Amino acid sequence: MDIRMTGIQPNHKNSSMSADSDSLKQSVVEKFGTPCTVVDLDIVENNIANAQQRCNDAGIANRPHIKTHKSPFFANQQLQAGAVGITCQKLGEAEVMFNAGITDIVIATNLIGAARSGKLAALQQQVALKVCADNQVTLTEYAKAACQAERTIDVLIECDTGQKRAGVETPGQARELAEIIDSNPWLDFAGLLFYPLLDTWPQTQAFFDEVSAGLSKLGMSAGIVSTGGTPNFVNLGNLQGATEHRAGTCIFNDRMMMAAGVATLDDCALQVFTTVVSRAGAERGILDAGSKTLTSDQGGLDGFGYIVEHPDAKIIKFSEEHGFLDLSRCQPKPGIGDVVRVIPNHVCVAVNMVDNLVAVRNNEIVDVIPVAARGKLV
Amino acid sequence: MDIRMTGIQPNHKNSSMSADSDSLKQSVVEKFGTPCTVVDLDIVENNIANAQQRCNDAGIANRPHIKTHKSPFFANQQLQAGAVGITCQKLGEAEVMFNAGITDIVIATNLIGAARSGKLAALQQQVALKVCADNQVTLTEYAKAACQAERTIDVLIECDTGQKRAGVETPGQARELAEIIDSNPWLDFAGLLFYPLLDTWPQTQAFFDEVSAGLSKLGMSAGIVSTGGTPNFVNLGNLQGATEHRAGTCIFNDRMMMAAGVATLDDCALQVFTTVVSRAGAERGILDAGSKTLTSDQGGLDGFGYIVEHPDAKIIKFSEEHGFLDLSRCQPKPGIGDVVRVIPNHVCVAVNMVDNLVAVRNNEIVDVIPVAARGKLV
Repeated sequence: MDIRMTGIQPNHKNSSMSADSDSLKQSVVEKFGTPCTVVDLDIVENNIANAQQRCNDAGIANRPHIKTHKSPFFANQQLQAGAVGITCQKLGEAEVMFNAGITDIVIATNLIGAARSGKLAALQQQVALKVCADNQVTLTEYAKAACQAERTIDVLIECDTGQKRAGVETPGQARELAEIIDSNPWLDFAGLLFYPLLDTWPQTQAFFDEVSAGLSKLGMSAGIVSTGGTPNFVNLGNLQGATEHRAGTCIFNDRMMMAAGVATLDDCALQVFTTVVSRAGAERGILDAGSKTLTSDQGGLDGFGYIVEHPDAKIIKFSEEHGFLDLSRCQPKPGIGDVVRVIPNHVCVAVNMVDNLVAVRNNEIVDVIPVAARGKLV
Repeated sequence: MDIRMTGIQPNHKNSSMSADSDSLKQSVVEKFGTPCTVVDLDIVENNIANAQQRCNDAGIANRPHIKTHKSPFFANQQLQAGAVGITCQKLGEAEVMFNAGITDIVIATNLIGAARSGKLAALQQQVALKVCADNQVTLTEYAKAACQAERTIDVLIECDTGQKRAGVETPGQARELAEIIDSNPWLDFAGLLFYPLLDTWPQTQAFFDEVSAGLSKLGMSAGIVSTGGTPNFVNLGNLQGATEHRAGTCIFNDRMMMAAGVATLDDCALQVFTTVVSRAGAERGILDAGSKTLTSDQGGLDGFGYIVEHPDAKIIKFSEEHGFLDLSRCQPKPGIGDVVRVIPNHVCVAVNMVDNLVAVRNNEIVDVIPVAARGKLV
């Protein structure tokens, strides 16, 4: 998705240069130093409530993807707001969430390494997981893990309708995998997982209808029919037969979501507080946050983040611990020592860089929340 | 630096499809699952020895940059091989290294947030650090921290000769800062820090000579004159007056260093073991490693990593937990379940994603080494 930055107006709550935000900056600097990744809990709770309401309005169960926050704290907030369960991308994330008491978990990927290592069997023994597959090798691994755990495992078939990532490309392949699942005593067919592009919902409907018809002939049906993605909220309810939606980014939002027109500046809950540490040239400056804080993931946008106080300052490049500012279009220009707040292009990968998030409400620090599932690669 | 991939031949030790590497893959999968970041200690020790030898040959002290490995284990190996001390980029990294017993530390950046938070004073109280500055605001913060620590602090002046990152742009500015340092009872002038581009060593010499002449008139001189960078080993000794060199990447090397012609496949110590988890299309595949494992940092190269077993397979894109393989030019193509080894484009940021490195020798797992200074953003 090559989304370009649309015009975003700076005059929002987030952009206030108020005494309140100055006082918060000072508190953050004094307690933690910079760079510091800060999340506003009021905005988070509003975002959680909005996502839940949109699902409720569409009659679709909400199964948020925890890849964005990787924290049981926020997962539990989502469940309390009405989510039916959660989505994870890695087995290690599911372990963290299960250890925090969460039991309704879809893992939305082909797990092969985690199955072979015995980690899948170990967790499946403790909690009935729902896993995904788009091929027979994965199914064989799942059956072995289920046998080892002595508990059958629920499997969703991942279907591709445009992302060209994982997912079978034809309804016939989906039906074949469903038959294999059905014939294996250790596997239970749990449903279908889609991640349509914004404009491939009609194709997704056709794909789903054909799979459904095929399953019907086998006396089977999909219990779960899942769609995904924050930008896809606009399409929620457009797939007849869909039962749940998994969105991640909407809990925090980011510059990509603003550029896609699905979030405003006031919906962006996460900011990286960073200090201007050098102004060696008249038209340029350096931040103490680089790719090891905000990542090199541009998400198809120009530049590397939105600076709340200086929307016309452009982060043109990162080295590992430096952000390169082009200040040529920026008036007034930030001075050395100024702390500025950056909304990342892609919040999911920015959260993944830190062990903790500093939580604030009304510009006061109220908590430090561990990103407990960070670094769970397997 | 926009370096393009040069032709790299696959027939090296690293690329062997031997029973030994198959057996290592199996051990890695069974013990850890995939993706898994693996480092070969024999190659590391060879790289450490080579870097030290090159410094010895040039009569330049070796002060390796620990940003690449972020681990006291490797820092101590470098010191045992003859390094005079280490370079850190963050105060938090220096804390970890000091707690592991390392006391000769340069922090090669303007520290402002870490100075204001009191963290700089707290560490300076325990160990005499060498810090860097390119401006008066930073110097003021350093003086405050030194006063708080009740110990004067050594300051190097960072000078820019082409990177356009941090660093004063003129010799006159360097001399002014030296005077300010000299006049402050809490600051001691320790020297000059350069990071020349490959082709700006002559300008760097002119810059240094002019600063030296200016300092001389003030009755001052630079005790440390530091250059940096792994590709700059080719220029080692070319700056008359240089006393030490700080290089990071050469301990592990990566696809960028191969493309720059300063490392071969056999010099690359770090590989990410990853499983092909989907082959939904005939000409494409999906790895279980994405931007949360290998990062989106392309380092100016085409594609996102070098696949040892399939040099003609191209990693064309990452999502967070998926690597997108273009297999159209690859024969034979990897199958679902195959484990492949990826050399990252940029190893420093790949190490920064994991809490531990799995250490091997002769294709046997021998250790698990914590990346103890990972996530130390401040």
